[in-house]
Order: sequence, then structure tokens, then C-alpha cells
Amino acid sequence: MKIDIFDTTLRDGAQSPGISFGIEDKIRIIKLLDEFGVDYIEAGNPGSNPKDFELFKRAAKLKLKHAKLAAFGPTCRAGTRADQDESLRKIIEAGTEYVVIFGKSWLLHVEQVIKTSAEENLRIISDSIKFMRENNKRVLFDAEHFFDGYYDNKDYALEVLRSAADAGAEIIILCDTNGGTMPDKIGEAVRDVGARIARPLQSRENYEPTISYKENGRAMRAPTAIKLGVHCHDDSGLAVAGTLEAVKNGVSHVHGTVNGIGERCGNANLCVLIANLQVKLNYKCVPPENLENLTELARLVAEHSNLAFNESTPFVGGHAFTHKAGMHIDGVNKLPGSFEHIRPSLVGNSRSTLVSEIAGKAALLNRVRLFAPEIDKDAPELIQALELIKSRENEGYQFENAEGSLDLLILESLGKRRKFFTVEDFNIKLAEPFTGGSASAKIKVNVGERRSAVIEAEGDGPVNALDIALRKALARFYPQIKNMKLIDYKVRVLDSNAATAAKVRVLIESADSTHVWRTIGVSTDIIEASWRALLDSLEYKLSLDEGLRLD
Amino acid sequence: MKIDIFDTTLRDGAQSPGISFGIEDKIRIIKLLDEFGVDYIEAGNPGSNPKDFELFKRAAKLKLKHAKLAAFGPTCRAGTRADQDESLRKIIEAGTEYVVIFGKSWLLHVEQVIKTSAEENLRIISDSIKFMRENNKRVLFDAEHFFDGYYDNKDYALEVLRSAADAGAEIIILCDTNGGTMPDKIGEAVRDVGARIARPLQSRENYEPTISYKENGRAMRAPTAIKLGVHCHDDSGLAVAGTLEAVKNGVSHVHGTVNGIGERCGNANLCVLIANLQVKLNYKCVPPENLENLTELARLVAEHSNLAFNESTPFVGGHAFTHKAGMHIDGVNKLPGSFEHIRPSLVGNSRSTLVSEIAGKAALLNRVRLFAPEIDKDAPELIQALELIKSRENEGYQFENAEGSLDLLILESLGKRRKFFTVEDFNIKLAEPFTGGSASAKIKVNVGERRSAVIEAEGDGPVNALDIALRKALARFYPQIKNMKLIDYKVRVLDSNAATAAKVRVLIESADSTHVWRTIGVSTDIIEASWRALLDSLEYKLSLDEGLRLD
Repeated sequence: MKIDIFDTTLRDGAQSPGISFGIEDKIRIIKLLDEFGVDYIEAGNPGSNPKDFELFKRAAKLKLKHAKLAAFGPTCRAGTRADQDESLRKIIEAGTEYVVIFGKSWLLHVEQVIKTSAEENLRIISDSIKFMRENNKRVLFDAEHFFDGYYDNKDYALEVLRSAADAGAEIIILCDTNGGTMPDKIGEAVRDVGARIARPLQSRENYEPTISYKENGRAMRAPTAIKLGVHCHDDSGLAVAGTLEAVKNGVSHVHGTVNGIGERCGNANLCVLIANLQVKLNYKCVPPENLENLTELARLVAEHSNLAFNESTPFVGGHAFTHKAGMHIDGVNKLPGSFEHIRPSLVGNSRSTLVSEIAGKAALLNRVRLFAPEIDKDAPELIQALELIKSRENEGYQFENAEGSLDLLILESLGKRRKFFTVEDFNIKLAEPFTGGSASAKIKVNVGERRSAVIEAEGDGPVNALDIALRKALARFYPQIKNMKLIDYKVRVLDSNAATAAKVRVLIESADSTHVWRTIGVSTDIIEASWRALLDSLEYKLSLDEGLRLD
Repeated sequence: MKIDIFDTTLRDGAQSPGISFGIEDKIRIIKLLDEFGVDYIEAGNPGSNPKDFELFKRAAKLKLKHAKLAAFGPTCRAGTRADQDESLRKIIEAGTEYVVIFGKSWLLHVEQVIKTSAEENLRIISDSIKFMRENNKRVLFDAEHFFDGYYDNKDYALEVLRSAADAGAEIIILCDTNGGTMPDKIGEAVRDVGARIARPLQSRENYEPTISYKENGRAMRAPTAIKLGVHCHDDSGLAVAGTLEAVKNGVSHVHGTVNGIGERCGNANLCVLIANLQVKLNYKCVPPENLENLTELARLVAEHSNLAFNESTPFVGGHAFTHKAGMHIDGVNKLPGSFEHIRPSLVGNSRSTLVSEIAGKAALLNRVRLFAPEIDKDAPELIQALELIKSRENEGYQFENAEGSLDLLILESLGKRRKFFTVEDFNIKLAEPFTGGSASAKIKVNVGERRSAVIEAEGDGPVNALDIALRKALARFYPQIKNMKLIDYKVRVLDSNAATAAKVRVLIESADSTHVWRTIGVSTDIIEASWRALLDSLEYKLSLDEGLRLD
């Protein structure tokens, strides 16, 4: 059975604290979502936000392959006419075929927030939807606060849905706006709405199971039926569970955002939802061949959201198939399914195991054997590597995400670490209040006994200046350095209550045309921490080129 | 109805990628959990990890008020005797009254991972539990992979539970070890186990609903019955939902970790679980008066876990009751319950509203009126403040978490910002490869037209040196500076793929005896970003002392 995927990353997601999309980010996200195969993309609220209006103008020029764009906005206000409503006009002007109109279905809100009567609320919903239909829009109706309304006053909440359906909405979305409804209560309400609204409406004598609209001036008719949707928020940590429960009880259109961003605690995480629906429960959401792009979608959208990606995210996070306990590592080595609920590749993710004090010697031995297959579990080199790692861990290092630095320590314990270069001297100057290129670094690098280079470089701050100077110096002796680049730079303050004297951990991710590697540095001085990670990165690149790694 | 809260932050939580607890952290977490009122604390696996064994020795000396410590470990191995098992002996030596023994309940694991027979697996479970009982331990049995086992081979999975119960386990925990079971399937299995194992066992003629154990050498008897527990993982994003479904179907003992840390995607988040059970579903989990410490518990444990706290966490996150959309802000102003599913204070959290482009002028006006109550919504000062904020936001600033810097901008727009000092000059030197106090900063500060101070200071890195020098200089003119301190320092890399030339955002949290405030700086140079946040922080302190803030 097909379940519509309705993405609201750019609308409800933009209501997430800390999120502020630029227009280029939004365009990129629309393209990614379309490519991935979602059915609807709610791109913004053109009536309330001029930037969103601009976005729809830009987006109209995109040639989307699969997704339909939708513009979102409220009904007209109480006591006003729909056809004179500025916000509704902007929605029409946004130029999408589909529009989402939201209205109140909780009497408490009607009376105390928008402060009008029960009847007037029904009228503005009906008139707003009719106005959209007259303008050839296909209408989705968001029944805001539906579940709270339903459990407070069933008759009224259902009456709201009936008004929307009668006015011509094709899809009615039951919203748990405050995120407080338990999944079983969602399921119960959905069943009742199915029985009392959707089905009777479809079997009513005068019910018209087609909608008419105009395309290029021609009158068109499309088959339809009232379809039920659901829109859950995560305030109880149950947005995905509530959505699944709604689907089980008859909903076939689900709302969510990539990575679950959204107002307060966020919306249902679409990545988790799609994986559950399609991989675990055998519904059809997106083209099957696109599922393996799910992990990439999550990461790219996080990047365009300028959001630290949560590696613990089910299915798509870096930790989702990462095994740490020794017994778990042993289990997946014997039989992957023993500790994995799905094959990671189904969603484009992959398995990894961690070297840590919990994993113990076995995991480290796996790694050591990449360089020295002959080593056995009681070899003194292994013990030495373990001690070296533990002493660094005591300083605040963590090698789980820094295999590059880990491998260098292992090579050191094996007596195989090569000295490609030494830095004899460096010097950093920071000029007067800051301007671009305000920092300069001078560095002397020795290679072997007799060759050296002195390079001075300017950069954006001391770390950048050091980075540029060091690479320039090394490139004289090792031209392949030019083929690598730093692709990520992360700073983590370890004991942030020590304020500016806090210890920081810097992680650098680097890549050349065939490898990606990560290195780490820790210090109370951010420049030193960065410098250490940088040195490891360059040394690792040179080691790789020597063919030290076996995998 | 009472639901047991069993915390495994220090055991399963420690299996989380990126987590590495020190022993002092663990002791602090045990105290926090006990104070909060959880029933059981699983503090580690003494047989597999010598550090955990040490921890139990230390923890035994704690005077816990409420919680019972439990030591965790596997059954003896196939083909070996329980009373000769080193790991079981360590568990006994750990000295806790309660022990958790885990064993396989999925035949696939029995045959392909531990590679033994179905019968031998039952034998090692039974013998291990009996051995614990002979040593006066009260036993909880973790039925690993129970749900996968149940749906693969019901008879065998149930037989495992029966063996454990017959051997003397008091509580049987059904584990969804791989986190892949859907909540409705968890509920269905729990109902069946209740009907086929727990109740028949209790009604059997020879069933002994008391257990005997020794305390200080005296024989004791305690009433008991087979209690069912559940242990869920979040690999499908449904750990909390699955746990709630289990409770609904008869489980009265639930496992989880603070902040949901744990192997792979983590465990059920206890904070979310407790709030749902106790606030929303009226079960009793912890003493009611402690509920309002839930938010603090989550933050403190995150700190001791050295973990970036996820502000989107339901109930306890900083965003959980933070409203951003203009209509939502308008709603909660009129009626808090309109956009909040619970009162935030019930769990020790609080409401906030954000100044952002989505919230628009109304939210900013609220803030501006703190300083100038006479301002109305069309005042030119308000427009100017909005423009100033937007231009900074374009540079990468975000004021949602930096009210200190926001207030300074507002004061500027109002013409009320005071120049307490100017920095005429500064100079930073970084010495040769890093040693403690490797950086020095020299700074000249002017106060008014005629007074100035030149101070030179050393520090751990350039930011710390600048911080020390600036405070020393200012303290000459404003001695109250000595009463403030920086309590948090955070660095966020904004466009981390620009590597060392990336823009960074620094957030500094500062406090004196009565206020806490946060300030921000953004630059491609981390020193400059820190410097800007630092300057704002000191200026804000001086502004506060002048009584500019009304709240």
C-alpha cells in the first residue's frame, strides 16, 4: 500500500529553534527531496514571510521530477472575507498547484486564542478552502490541534473536518500540534474519523469523488476521495510511533521533516518514518531504488540546515550500526543479523566497530592486524598500543572517531611509524583588531637530515595560517600533499565550565581522491589542539601513500 | 500503579559510542540518580571490566537513600560450571544485593553465536541464577533478544523464561536488544508472556511467592512474585513507545538511560519515559516531589557524560517549551495550554519565546520593552533594532541563545548603550611548541577620556590569555568584574567543510551572584569570535550593574 510522504522541513522545520535557512539552502533541499522521491514539499508560508514568497518564485522554475510543491497558510481571519485576505492571495500568487490551509479544530482555541464563535470558525475554514478551489488550487486541510480538540469535544472537531471536506479539501490532515497525544489515542481517533467522516462522505449520494480544476485554462477533472493524513510533533518522544499508529488505523498520507527538525521538540523524523514504513512494515513510500540514499539525504539536509547531525539517529546515524560492547562485536562478526535489526546497506548506512575500553583487546587486535597480520593477542606490541591509547584517552583523546590518529599510534607501537618531517620552529603573529588575513604564521620544516623549508603564510586566524604554511612547506618535498584537502573541522569543548581555560578536542576530517581519514588533537589551547590534529592528518596522508594500510 | 525505574546509564549507557565515564563521573551519577529516586541503578559489568569492579567497591560505601545498586553480567559459558565461572564470581564479589544475569532467549543466537544446544543454554541460565541465589543474591534475569526470539520460536523463548523463573529470578526482563521490534508486537508478546508464564507460575501449587535470602548472616524472606520488565533500544526510534506499550500490557519494571545514551542508537530515554508515565499517564515512578528535578537531572548527567545535551529532547530540552512561530507565541501569551501539552514547571523546565525572522516584530517588541516600556510596534527604534539583528544574523549570529548580546544591540538601537571602556590596542604572542602558559596577551584599555591601563597576562592559549588580561585591566576601574565568572564556553563551526578557514560561532555563558547571561561572537578567526563574545559579556555585566534590565 502506498503512503504519501509530505515533507515540511522548509516550513515546520524552519520553526525549529536554531534553524535559519538561506534561500539557496532551501533550493538545494527541494532538489534533494525531489530526487529522493517524496510526494509533497511544503516550502513555506508565502503570506507571512516575504522570503518564502520569493522562494516560491524561484522554485517554480525548478523542473521537479516527482514532488509537488505546496504553499502553506492560515484561513482568513474571523469576520473577514476569504477573497479579500492578503495572506490567502499570497498563497495563490505563490503559484503552486497544491496549497495547505490550516484551521482550528479545538474549540478552546477557537474561543480563547482566535476569539471567535464555533460557527464563524467553520465559516472561515469553508470559505478559505472554497476560495482556493475557485482559484484552481488543490487543497490539503491541516486540522490544527485535531487530537486535543477531538478528546475535548468530539462533535465539534468532526464538524470541522466535515466543513473542510464539503468545501473541497482533498486531503484532511489530523495534526497533533502540541505533540502530547499518546499513540493509542491517535489510533483510536483516526479509526473514528475514518468511520464517521471519510467513509460516509465517500458513500453519500451526492458525494463527488472527483475534483475539477483548470490547467492552462482547460477544465480538468481528477479522481479523488477524502484521504486522511497525520502530522505529529515529538513533544512526548512519540511522533514516529503516533504516525505509525495512525497509518495502521487508516491514514495514507504522513507529514514529517528530515532529521525531525521543527517547532519545539520537532516533527516526526521522516528518515526514521520512511525506514520503518518501507523497510520494516512493507508499505511503499518512495521508489525502492532510492531508499539506499536515505542516509545521504539526512546528512546533506543537516548540512544545509547548518545543524550538527545527531549520530544516534535510528537507521541513518553514524552510530546506528556501530557496535561497541565486546560481545556485540563478537556477535556481528559471526552473524550480522545477531545484533542488527536490518541490513545497514538497505538505507545506505554501514556497519562499524569501535576500539574502546569496553570493546577491549579484540577490537584493537582487528585494527593492529591491518598493519601486522602476524600479531597475536598476547604480543607485547598489542599491550603497548593499548597502554598508549589509554594514556591518551586519559588526556581527553577519543579514537572512536579518529582512526587516522589511532593508526599512527598503532604504527608507533609496532615500530613502523615513519618520520616524514619534523617542524623545527614556528611563530604566529596576530595583528591588531581583526581584519581578513589578520594572522600570519612562519614555520620551518625539516625533511630528513639535510632538507628544510621556511614558509610564511597569512590566513583567517592562526589555525588557518598554520595550515597554509605547513602544507606549502611540505608540498616542496611531498607534492602529493596538494591532492588532499580538509573536508571537516570540528571543535568540542570538553570541560566547558572551565570557560576559556577549558580543554578542547579538535577533529579534522581529510580526504584525497581515494581515502577519507579523521585525526584528533586535544589541548587547553585550541591552536595546539588544531595543530596536533593537522600534523596527524598530513602524516597520515603520507603514510597512506606509502601503502601502509591494507584495507 | 507503581512502575519500577531501572537505570542502566552506567552500563548500557557506557556502551554508547563517544561515551567514556571516569570513576568520579560514575559516582556523581549514582548520587544524582539516587537523589532523584530511581529504584535500581545498574552500575556496570564487574566481571568484564576491572574499572567497573572498582566502582562497585567505591559505591558500596555510598549511603543511598532510595536506589538499589545492581551488578550485571552474563551466565556462565556453555560447557562450564556456574560456580567456577570467573565473571559470576566477580559479580558476587561486587557486593550488591541485586544482580542482573543476562542470557539468550533467541535460538538463532544460541546456535550460531554462542554455538551451543538449546538444552545447554537452558542449563547455563538455570545454573547461573541458582548459583547467585545460593550466594544470597536477588536475581533479575535479562532475556536478551526476547522479542526476536519470541517471533522466531515462541516455545523456546518462553521455555527460557520458565527456566529463569524456576531457578529463582524475581524479575524477568524482556529485552529488545536489537531495537527492531514494533511497539504493537512488543505489546502482543508481553500479553502472552503474562498469560503463559507470569500468571500460571504464580498460581501453580508449588509456586513459592516469597524468596529467602540472608542479611547480616540472618535468614530473611521477602514477598515476591514474578515481575515482568522491559528493556528497549531505539534503533527504530520507538524505544519509549515500545516501553509504554509493554507497560500498558502488564510490565511494571522498565529499563532506560538518562538522555537515552546506549549501544548504537541508545536505550529508552528515562527522562522522556518517566515524564510520559508519571505526568501523562498517571503511573507512579519516582516520588512526586522529585519530578520537578527531571530537567536538572538530564542536564547534569549529560555534563558528567561529557555529552552535548540535545536541546530538542522532549520534556527536558531547552527547546521543549520554546516557541518560535509568531502564531504560537501569540497563542501561549493568551493561554499557555494552547501550545503546550504539559505545564513546563512540572518537569522543572520553563517556557521561552524566540526572537527570529519567523517570530517577527512581536517577540522583539516584548524584549525591547524590558528597557523602554513606552516603545510601540511602529517605533523607528524597533525597526532599527530589527535591521541590526538581521544584518548580524546574515553574518552567522544567532541571538536565540545569546540574550546578552541581543540586549546590547537593542540598547544600541535605543541610544542607551553605554561605552564603559574601549580597547585601544592588543597584541598576542604564541611561543614555540606548546607548553602551559604558552600564550601571552598585552592589552590597553581606556575608560573615559583620561584613564587607561596596560596589562600583560599569560594563559592557556590566546583566548585564555586575552580573557585574563582584559579582566585584570577592567577590574582596576570596575572592581565588580571580580564577582563574575565565565561558566560555559562553546564553539560551533558553522561551515565545517571550509575546514580551518571555516566560520566559527562562540557562545559564552557568564554569571555573577544574581544573573546568568549568554553572549556570542562570530568570525572565521576563532580568537576574534571568542574576543567578541568576551567583550559583550563584560559589557553586559557592567550594564546589569547599572540596573538597565527590568526583569
